[in-house]
Amino acid sequence: MRNAALACRDAALAIAGLSDAGKRDLLMAMAARIEAEAALILAANELDMAQAAHRGLAAAMLDRLRLDGGRIAGIAHSLREVAELADPVGQVTRRETLPNGVVVERVRVPLGVIAMIYEARPNVTVDAAALCLKAGNGVILRGGSEAIHSNRALAGLLRQVLAEADLPVAAVTLVEDLGRETMIELLQLADIVDLAIPRGGEGLIRFVAEHARVPVIKHYKGVCHLYVDQAADLDLALDLLIDGKVSRPSACNALETLLVHRGVAASFLPRAAAALARHKVAVRGCEETRKLLPGIEAASAADFAAEFLDLIIAVRIVGDLDAAIAHIREYGSDHTEVIATADADAARRFVSALRSAVVMVNASSRFSDGGELGLGAEIGISTTRLHAYGPMGIEALTIERYVLHGQGQVRHGNVVAPVDPPG
Amino acid sequence: MRNAALACRDAALAIAGLSDAGKRDLLMAMAARIEAEAALILAANELDMAQAAHRGLAAAMLDRLRLDGGRIAGIAHSLREVAELADPVGQVTRRETLPNGVVVERVRVPLGVIAMIYEARPNVTVDAAALCLKAGNGVILRGGSEAIHSNRALAGLLRQVLAEADLPVAAVTLVEDLGRETMIELLQLADIVDLAIPRGGEGLIRFVAEHARVPVIKHYKGVCHLYVDQAADLDLALDLLIDGKVSRPSACNALETLLVHRGVAASFLPRAAAALARHKVAVRGCEETRKLLPGIEAASAADFAAEFLDLIIAVRIVGDLDAAIAHIREYGSDHTEVIATADADAARRFVSALRSAVVMVNASSRFSDGGELGLGAEIGISTTRLHAYGPMGIEALTIERYVLHGQGQVRHGNVVAPVDPPG
Repeated sequence: MRNAALACRDAALAIAGLSDAGKRDLLMAMAARIEAEAALILAANELDMAQAAHRGLAAAMLDRLRLDGGRIAGIAHSLREVAELADPVGQVTRRETLPNGVVVERVRVPLGVIAMIYEARPNVTVDAAALCLKAGNGVILRGGSEAIHSNRALAGLLRQVLAEADLPVAAVTLVEDLGRETMIELLQLADIVDLAIPRGGEGLIRFVAEHARVPVIKHYKGVCHLYVDQAADLDLALDLLIDGKVSRPSACNALETLLVHRGVAASFLPRAAAALARHKVAVRGCEETRKLLPGIEAASAADFAAEFLDLIIAVRIVGDLDAAIAHIREYGSDHTEVIATADADAARRFVSALRSAVVMVNASSRFSDGGELGLGAEIGISTTRLHAYGPMGIEALTIERYVLHGQGQVRHGNVVAPVDPPG
Repeated sequence: MRNAALACRDAALAIAGLSDAGKRDLLMAMAARIEAEAALILAANELDMAQAAHRGLAAAMLDRLRLDGGRIAGIAHSLREVAELADPVGQVTRRETLPNGVVVERVRVPLGVIAMIYEARPNVTVDAAALCLKAGNGVILRGGSEAIHSNRALAGLLRQVLAEADLPVAAVTLVEDLGRETMIELLQLADIVDLAIPRGGEGLIRFVAEHARVPVIKHYKGVCHLYVDQAADLDLALDLLIDGKVSRPSACNALETLLVHRGVAASFLPRAAAALARHKVAVRGCEETRKLLPGIEAASAADFAAEFLDLIIAVRIVGDLDAAIAHIREYGSDHTEVIATADADAARRFVSALRSAVVMVNASSRFSDGGELGLGAEIGISTTRLHAYGPMGIEALTIERYVLHGQGQVRHGNVVAPVDPPG
């Protein structure tokens, strides 16, 4: 693993040196190659699907693993979208001339080597590689064992295109030894790997966080809240509730808990319950909610901490805005929180009191997504309050460094023997 | 440790809610208190100094530990400088209106809880606390055991001022149990501590990196290079060499290695050696250098990797710019590199080929410092290529998050039963 990672680091230097046009052409050629070799990819994917069926994988997992012509076209389309993203590398984010005449620039550079750790989703192989390359990085891909044939086929095609462009193929390195020891070794290459991004279930992410000695950006789960304030437009709140809960319940930006101000609970909750019932959403409520909505299940503390990823919602009536904030601080996951209110002061207090990566006033939690927020493709969502917080696009795969241009300026005009204390 | 850290996290919320003026007043009051209680601080410091002398600490360490009236005035002065820094919290770094009318803002918020791990320097106790508080964070201070009485006195005064301002004193938490187990426990509180910043020798930093499960920003050492190109102005190069090497050899931004293009070696090196000799700098050279400068010691590979922090410099003659770049890639520490050249193309190639946090053209490596670069006070220097890279000021103690303002926008206008695959 160490030698493969070192090769990726060297290869990353070549990618870092490419122009925007060079990276664009590279990714365009990769998209074309994937379309041209669809039959090869589908044959590899069939092997994975057959093994997965044999091993009795759940239907949802089989669906994520499966490729078909439409999905391969989608992968190529995503590649072309990433190819066309504005290149962050070389961007001068600030420029200042010091009193002594030295020009100080902050310039975006690639991170270096990024390790992607993910589950049985072959499309991540290409999406992640494309974003890492476009940002000038090398990538080490460690996907789930269920997708190994598909991943090998896809990564092999990307590497073909690298080789044909006279670029080192190690810039896209697929880990083929899927043993735990190898993954742990990868996560501990602190002098080589600049960042690990785990994507998948909470178990995978905790494993990565536990074993990593390289920096990790992650989110464990999205327990997203909608708080319907006393001053909310209740029609608007209902729209946010239904969109947030049912438009894609399996997404991390779906709503999991509804908090309702006591002053509007009697008018809002029966309407909300009826709408949720039409969408087959099961409601679990606090005691007070259950008085307004007889027949629903009781919500436990575990329900309020749960990321259901399903057509289930926990509901709690709160006495005021502060109680809503306290609930979110206790049960939230720092992902995305929404307030529905027409009261600008309540909105301001809600936003400033909560530390979550994305906080919204009168908009659906489902906008908490790199594509929706205009970042282009998304490499992940961070609830780590460092480097990137919230949806992460291509810029999160770069870092600003300092470039100084002088004409011979020195710090101490007349240098004599050193007099400062050490340190 | 866990309960103390939890208290710091709660206290940090109160600090995060302060206005710029509130934080400024708080730090000004702290500066005044430290000046007023100088006698108390000096008495505590005398205890530390007596114990340290008894334990036979080295003179350099005793010097770092020692406080006097002038140094206390310096600490108060630094506090006032931090108080006057522009407040990054609440700053809107980007604002964009999506096609659907939702306004997306990127807003700076505090990181949360920062653990500072440092050695026997009492001034760090106050400097770090001031920067963390001004950026809206709580801070957990774990200083060296040699300074425990001084640190207790200083942190106690800061906490007095917090209490008098009706703020939770846990916002400044001093770790008084200095056992390794407690430090390890602190470094593993991944759900509470948002960032650990170790400052000190390489041993301390490696210990922190090894045991931390919280994010760490660090630099191990500064092996800074000056490359004198064939097209260099040799007078200018000599100024950069002497300033970089002798103005403060113990600083991490001091030069450790001089690389000289073969084409100018015969004209530059004898002059450089004479100037270095006047400043009592010992020169260790490659074979070719030793032919030009008979009598100097030979430089080993270990010398080229060394951060001498002393009046020693390693010298190597290289055939061209590429060889200089290759040397720096092999031996460098990603801290600061300088090229002296009048050739714009050589400068451009040097800057783009090297990944170091700070790269300079015709300016002294000693400018690689937060104060010099206009960041105000410096909390540290990062050679971790994540979040911050190079000198870190107050902004590095914050993170940008997303705030959305809508009028009820939803992602799927007509929500029916979910059809997307899970995930």
